[in-house]
Amino acid sequence: MIQERLTRLRDKMEAADVDCCLIPTSDDHDSEYVSGFFTVRRFFSGFTGSAGTLVVTGKEAALFTDGRYFIQARKQLAGTGIKLMEMGEPDVPTLKEYLEEQIKEGQNLGFDGKVVQAGEAAEYEEILQKKQGKVIWDFEPAEGIWQDRPSLPHAPVFRLEECYSGESLADKLKRVRQEMEKEKADVHIITSLDDIAWLFNLRGSDIDHCPVFLAYAVIRMDEVLLFADKREFGEVVFADEVKGYLEENGVTLLPYQDFYRYVASMDGIRALVCKGRMNYRTDRLLEGRLEVVDRINPTTVMKAVKNQTEMENLRKAHLKDGVAVTRFMYWLKTNIGKLPMTEITAGRYLEQLRKEQEHFIEPSFETICAYGANGAIVHYSAKEENCAVIEPKGFLMVDSGGHYLEGSTDITRTFVMGEITKEMKEHFTLVLQAMLHLRSTRFLYGCKGLNLDIRAREVFWERGLDYKHGTGHGVGYLLNVHEGPNSFRWKQIPGGVESAVLEEGMVTTDEPGIYIEGSHGIRTENELLCRKGEKNGYGQFMYFEDLTWVPIDLDGVDVSLLSEKERTQLNDYHKIVFEKLNPYFTNEELEWLKEATREV
Amino acid sequence: MIQERLTRLRDKMEAADVDCCLIPTSDDHDSEYVSGFFTVRRFFSGFTGSAGTLVVTGKEAALFTDGRYFIQARKQLAGTGIKLMEMGEPDVPTLKEYLEEQIKEGQNLGFDGKVVQAGEAAEYEEILQKKQGKVIWDFEPAEGIWQDRPSLPHAPVFRLEECYSGESLADKLKRVRQEMEKEKADVHIITSLDDIAWLFNLRGSDIDHCPVFLAYAVIRMDEVLLFADKREFGEVVFADEVKGYLEENGVTLLPYQDFYRYVASMDGIRALVCKGRMNYRTDRLLEGRLEVVDRINPTTVMKAVKNQTEMENLRKAHLKDGVAVTRFMYWLKTNIGKLPMTEITAGRYLEQLRKEQEHFIEPSFETICAYGANGAIVHYSAKEENCAVIEPKGFLMVDSGGHYLEGSTDITRTFVMGEITKEMKEHFTLVLQAMLHLRSTRFLYGCKGLNLDIRAREVFWERGLDYKHGTGHGVGYLLNVHEGPNSFRWKQIPGGVESAVLEEGMVTTDEPGIYIEGSHGIRTENELLCRKGEKNGYGQFMYFEDLTWVPIDLDGVDVSLLSEKERTQLNDYHKIVFEKLNPYFTNEELEWLKEATREV
Repeated sequence: MIQERLTRLRDKMEAADVDCCLIPTSDDHDSEYVSGFFTVRRFFSGFTGSAGTLVVTGKEAALFTDGRYFIQARKQLAGTGIKLMEMGEPDVPTLKEYLEEQIKEGQNLGFDGKVVQAGEAAEYEEILQKKQGKVIWDFEPAEGIWQDRPSLPHAPVFRLEECYSGESLADKLKRVRQEMEKEKADVHIITSLDDIAWLFNLRGSDIDHCPVFLAYAVIRMDEVLLFADKREFGEVVFADEVKGYLEENGVTLLPYQDFYRYVASMDGIRALVCKGRMNYRTDRLLEGRLEVVDRINPTTVMKAVKNQTEMENLRKAHLKDGVAVTRFMYWLKTNIGKLPMTEITAGRYLEQLRKEQEHFIEPSFETICAYGANGAIVHYSAKEENCAVIEPKGFLMVDSGGHYLEGSTDITRTFVMGEITKEMKEHFTLVLQAMLHLRSTRFLYGCKGLNLDIRAREVFWERGLDYKHGTGHGVGYLLNVHEGPNSFRWKQIPGGVESAVLEEGMVTTDEPGIYIEGSHGIRTENELLCRKGEKNGYGQFMYFEDLTWVPIDLDGVDVSLLSEKERTQLNDYHKIVFEKLNPYFTNEELEWLKEATREV
Repeated sequence: MIQERLTRLRDKMEAADVDCCLIPTSDDHDSEYVSGFFTVRRFFSGFTGSAGTLVVTGKEAALFTDGRYFIQARKQLAGTGIKLMEMGEPDVPTLKEYLEEQIKEGQNLGFDGKVVQAGEAAEYEEILQKKQGKVIWDFEPAEGIWQDRPSLPHAPVFRLEECYSGESLADKLKRVRQEMEKEKADVHIITSLDDIAWLFNLRGSDIDHCPVFLAYAVIRMDEVLLFADKREFGEVVFADEVKGYLEENGVTLLPYQDFYRYVASMDGIRALVCKGRMNYRTDRLLEGRLEVVDRINPTTVMKAVKNQTEMENLRKAHLKDGVAVTRFMYWLKTNIGKLPMTEITAGRYLEQLRKEQEHFIEPSFETICAYGANGAIVHYSAKEENCAVIEPKGFLMVDSGGHYLEGSTDITRTFVMGEITKEMKEHFTLVLQAMLHLRSTRFLYGCKGLNLDIRAREVFWERGLDYKHGTGHGVGYLLNVHEGPNSFRWKQIPGGVESAVLEEGMVTTDEPGIYIEGSHGIRTENELLCRKGEKNGYGQFMYFEDLTWVPIDLDGVDVSLLSEKERTQLNDYHKIVFEKLNPYFTNEELEWLKEATREV
């Protein structure tokens, strides 16, 4: 099936004079996860991971993806003839290097300019210039080939009240305009959906697990345009109440599809845009007519720094989430071997428990519920037809999260379901140590995740081990669960964003893991809120406040491997877990919680 | 005196239409340390530190320097009216910000383009463009004001045999030309002295403690020009043997002062240069006539990675250096309270001991021998007239090194001279822990010093403490004791170079410290050689080999504060120190060495 699709694509390429076709994983808004309409890379490759770029030439096809997906991609690409390019591994070319190698003198590169970001496209233009070929940026691979393609989403949009957002649209606009003034910009164009949702204090559900809505925004000093209306789909995307709110704030609501026409009509002004997150089609339409200031969107930096209201709400969201996940843990640990459980039914039960919590909206990403060897597949997704049955032995790793009005959560716990080997226990303890080390780091203001990542990784590296993913990522507030610009990682992925200086109010996950192919996978993840600590002659010290409150399965911990300090940290953490959660538990559950958070 | 000089400078500025004058610490070759002729910043400010930039306007004068020099600069600037700008501190503007603030609309900035690097000057041009003023880059502040200015140095140049350099000039040229080919460059211009000395396998002594010689080099595919002859000074800089060697290798030796004339005559070709280390005058002469490829000099990267011969030699150099410094430690510890000692006489005695070692050439930098509170002045330099008398109490910190034919060394030990307080002992132990942690780090290939710095700093940050300098710097091979591109630091100094990926063969110091103003200073420094370790599915692991072998004063260590692991590391290190050094010690010295390296 994949081979047949590729054959049809190659015919289409030939007809359009495209020698090399690039299919990234993106929508018109640089979203990390994309709605069905935009899953073109998946359509042509069969690879279902959330990150990857497919390159197709007349002779070859290659899929570039990162360490989280190596095992999964190997499985899914088997038999398709598509080569897997394991990004970041020795001797594997980067995407750019591969393109330079594949594209011959005078050949052309084609892609859909709406799903390639402007910053990235500039690099392709450079390569094609060297090759004396051209970039064909209006080549849409799926058009005419993908018959049953899903339609564009058009879900209702709702307003996030100020008791949740902590800052009004008017105040946010004021801050954005201050940034525009600094850059002497007349207009600011925003095309990234999370930036738009944050700025307008609106949320939607156009993308699974991402409470955003398809839109473009144009901010001027005296005017705000929101291209988001989808009346022509016959759906009420904006209820009267929301329309009224926008009107009150001087926002003009326009049809979604009018954006490109509008952009093509702009003239002679200075525009602030983020080329890294703006698509190339928009860039081409602006080119030559507008003076462009290219920098990170002011909203990207602003929304990463949670305000007092958001921080207070996040504490509430995480408490609710902690109750749900801990209840799930109780259910798992007390029913294993008694009730039938599979990865799918367990995951569903966890979602059920989250739904019981007030203001729960939806899971913040697709739950990873991975039993035994499946845990070694970093972004494993259980399928009904072949999911594993959970038995009373080994590990069950569950990485999940929820969107609440009080914010988004992301937590991983690995549960001991029965007997485990000595090595498995050592690995579990190692992951715990790594998580504790990073979490307890105090540091001077000015540090980036790049500086701190080794705090988690050192116990692995010391033993010749590693995990092939970043240690942590930023988390949005009722927004994308992966959010920049803060992160914990040691290595720059070529073309990736620099990890930002950690500011008070930033939320980042702390999630080291270990993955032994064919055997087991362990990950333990807490979310950390960056806070200001002591300020003295050396500078402003910073520390992390825990947001996540769920027991760490003591059945996996070899206490003899912990230092005195680590043991104290674990006990202190569990003590607070018990204090926070015990009001929500009674009887056997409460007894169990006491035991699960006991001092070791 | 300083005020008078500044008055004369301001008169000169007015005459030349210069509103703001910039005086950096550099020579025409971007050397870190400069020979007397180039100490213009010192002449006008009185500040003797090795790093700093003086900015003089009609009304104000300000000196920018970094954390190593805050205490020293505060003392030396007192009464001069010059403002101290403590770089990197909160609320202190960067040099660029300060210039933007000081230079008014339509005003001009003046400096000597020979002592400002091209990359840096580009930033000044940008500011002046905004201000609609101009950069006057042929303004030489000292000319006509500095009467008794020292002359340009012109010391003899000698050849470093291949048994020391490990690679012939011919082979090095071949590698440089390969890099030129990659960049499609017709010519490569090198103006930095350490790059030139390394490439030609020549050494000199034109700058105190830096075995380099004033020169410029021009490499073409079929020609090599070395502008270094100084016959007009009446000195034999190049002996016949060296001239013969250069001739054999196809190198044309030309007068030093002919370089700028030559550059002004180049035309229509593509030149590889490193603007970050090439002066602005050269840049201006090339501008518009040559196509310039700006990147780090190939030789900078090559010389940082020591070859097998250099590594083997370095082990020998450090053993000799270890014998000298350990003998010094014995002398100090056994004679304190019996023999009179000052910072100056102790430093001289150490130099004497180094001189007894075979192939010793000179100290690799000005010895820092700092007693008591002077130890808190990071780059303290004892002066004959007011140096401290060493008493049988407190700490003596000695940071010193030697140039040998087998390489350069840099070591710091802090010695306990008698009674110390509990806090002092805690601090000493903390510094030791920091040094041990970084030294024992294993890491995946691809890490930079930026990733690893926290390994040393974490024990300080945990306690709300810090040291205001990088944790370590690269070290040249019989070259500059501070050498890029490798380093250990967590923060980028604006305009500074990025710390490079650590490669096998790179030598970096590991030198955390603590500085309590008015009380004490402690620093412990070993040099680390980066090595390849295990390679497995996770990647290429790297580790550090110790180069430095001198006991760490156990009188300063509170063993109860060490973890089991730290104690083992310390004992293991001392065991090897004893094994390596004991053949060179006899009788009481040997007994003492046994005790000084005992297991704790």
